[in-house]
Amino acid sequence: MQAQLIALDWGTTSLRAYKLAVGGQVLEQRSLSSGIMQLPSVPRMIAGQRCADGFELAFDEACGDWLDAQPGLAVIACGMVGSAQGWSEATYRDTPANVASLGTALNTVRSLRGVDVHIVPGVIERSRLPNVMRGEETQVLGALQGLPADAGGPLLIGLPGSHSKWVEVADGCIVHFDTFMTGELFAVLSEHSILGRTQQRGAPFDSEAFDRGVRVALSCEGENGPLSTLFSARTLGLTGELSPAGQTDYLSGLLIGHELVALANAQRRRRDSADLPSIMLIGNAQLCARYSRALERCGFARASLAEHATERGLWHLAEAAGLLGRTPAFN
Amino acid sequence: MQAQLIALDWGTTSLRAYKLAVGGQVLEQRSLSSGIMQLPSVPRMIAGQRCADGFELAFDEACGDWLDAQPGLAVIACGMVGSAQGWSEATYRDTPANVASLGTALNTVRSLRGVDVHIVPGVIERSRLPNVMRGEETQVLGALQGLPADAGGPLLIGLPGSHSKWVEVADGCIVHFDTFMTGELFAVLSEHSILGRTQQRGAPFDSEAFDRGVRVALSCEGENGPLSTLFSARTLGLTGELSPAGQTDYLSGLLIGHELVALANAQRRRRDSADLPSIMLIGNAQLCARYSRALERCGFARASLAEHATERGLWHLAEAAGLLGRTPAFN
Repeated sequence: MQAQLIALDWGTTSLRAYKLAVGGQVLEQRSLSSGIMQLPSVPRMIAGQRCADGFELAFDEACGDWLDAQPGLAVIACGMVGSAQGWSEATYRDTPANVASLGTALNTVRSLRGVDVHIVPGVIERSRLPNVMRGEETQVLGALQGLPADAGGPLLIGLPGSHSKWVEVADGCIVHFDTFMTGELFAVLSEHSILGRTQQRGAPFDSEAFDRGVRVALSCEGENGPLSTLFSARTLGLTGELSPAGQTDYLSGLLIGHELVALANAQRRRRDSADLPSIMLIGNAQLCARYSRALERCGFARASLAEHATERGLWHLAEAAGLLGRTPAFN
Repeated sequence: MQAQLIALDWGTTSLRAYKLAVGGQVLEQRSLSSGIMQLPSVPRMIAGQRCADGFELAFDEACGDWLDAQPGLAVIACGMVGSAQGWSEATYRDTPANVASLGTALNTVRSLRGVDVHIVPGVIERSRLPNVMRGEETQVLGALQGLPADAGGPLLIGLPGSHSKWVEVADGCIVHFDTFMTGELFAVLSEHSILGRTQQRGAPFDSEAFDRGVRVALSCEGENGPLSTLFSARTLGLTGELSPAGQTDYLSGLLIGHELVALANAQRRRRDSADLPSIMLIGNAQLCARYSRALERCGFARASLAEHATERGLWHLAEAAGLLGRTPAFN
């Protein structure tokens, strides 16, 4: 089948490439470690020229052969590739943002082989504490495309990760979002703080330790917040109540629990209602499973999981940008 | 004047030595970098024997000449030297703990030169989330000795640091305490997270940025807790609202603010009263100044500062242990 679009999800540490056919059907996909912070550096020939530019090298590795076979293919990319440290900065668009407003604001960089790479801008919410995202906006818009048309009721989309995002949507628009640095905090504490010294890594998931961490975040001791409860990951070890193998998952549950307790309180305040919205999660399956587990323990209904959100989002943004010519919609 | 006691405050990264005379008067003091995690390692002769033990080497550096001059001097030490990673483990004592209960529970290690080093045990509170301290108990007991006998009203003693302690005392006893990992979190985030990448270090104290951080912790956005507000140290920089030079102190104010907001709430709950207790701070002068500033902005009265808490505490513990013979009290 003839391809219609090359779609790139180009983040800090990885680059995923999709070759998409009419309707957004995935013909082929690849995953490379050439994120913008770890680009290739060995020079080689591209389009008849010796090239040492990391972005060009990574781009060529990801989809050079696809472009050789079909030189006219459109290319779209989302993620940190559009940041100030990326290939070409794509200025943030303000909330509310939807497929139309982002699709008509793509930033274009001309590659060495003469192909234009269209970069999706990130989204900024200029609230008192501003919030930004790059890449997640594409996933959210893709997940919305996958929803049945009659899906009603308030929906909150969660994207767990180093900087977890919680995104409120209305009428197909990203209207508000929050960022929690939970994943990065977990990583720096495990690698560089006193809590990491007694952690035994690499053990299988200890659901009991994880749930215990969530319970502490929900408890009256948890009201003092993570700055206070964190030390228990050490002291429960000192008193023999938590094994070294359980400490990692306890810390994970504790931090995710604090994130979700704060999220639930914020949602109740924003909606002025005790009811919590439905949750859809996008991201790494193992991490989403942890969040699903903790969400239920924090009073949320069972979360649904979005599939193919990135490639769906990129397809629809390319369509809105007029990169595809006349093609039927993804679904 | 004849010395009566060698008092050591032996922590993770430093070792402070005091030569004390009758009444606890400081005759001489020294500060070494030989904390238990960075002990000297070059072997040399001690008491006629070749010695490679880091604790012996550090001990000899700190006060070998004092002991040569006065071989019968008593020696007392507090801090991480009594931890499982220390010279000899001094088992934690439970709350409530006072000078009498700790002074009669010293752990003794015989040094190579035949002198006994008496190590003060730490204190543990076996609450649902256990809390531990080593070294701070001595400072708290020393600070209490410095109080006028008629000092009335509830008092909360704060020891800001990597693991800040907030200690409630009653009738000369440590009855309850909390630990906040604020200082260590600030350090790991500044050194190892994305927030550190845009920080410009070494600038003079930016009180405006610090106060802004405290205000955010106190604001309705602050109710989402530090996991959520942390990202603003980056986004306020991205939007040009916070200079690289201000980011370090903004993060400091934000974290200290979250600590003190949680502390104020916890104190009001515990005392079932809107009134907050008086605060006495012990520790590094610059850090105490930051905490004083933030405490006032968080609704606490102006904090007082304890002086000479460590050496006072060690003196009184040595006295309670019967190490001093018959000597008049410190004050």
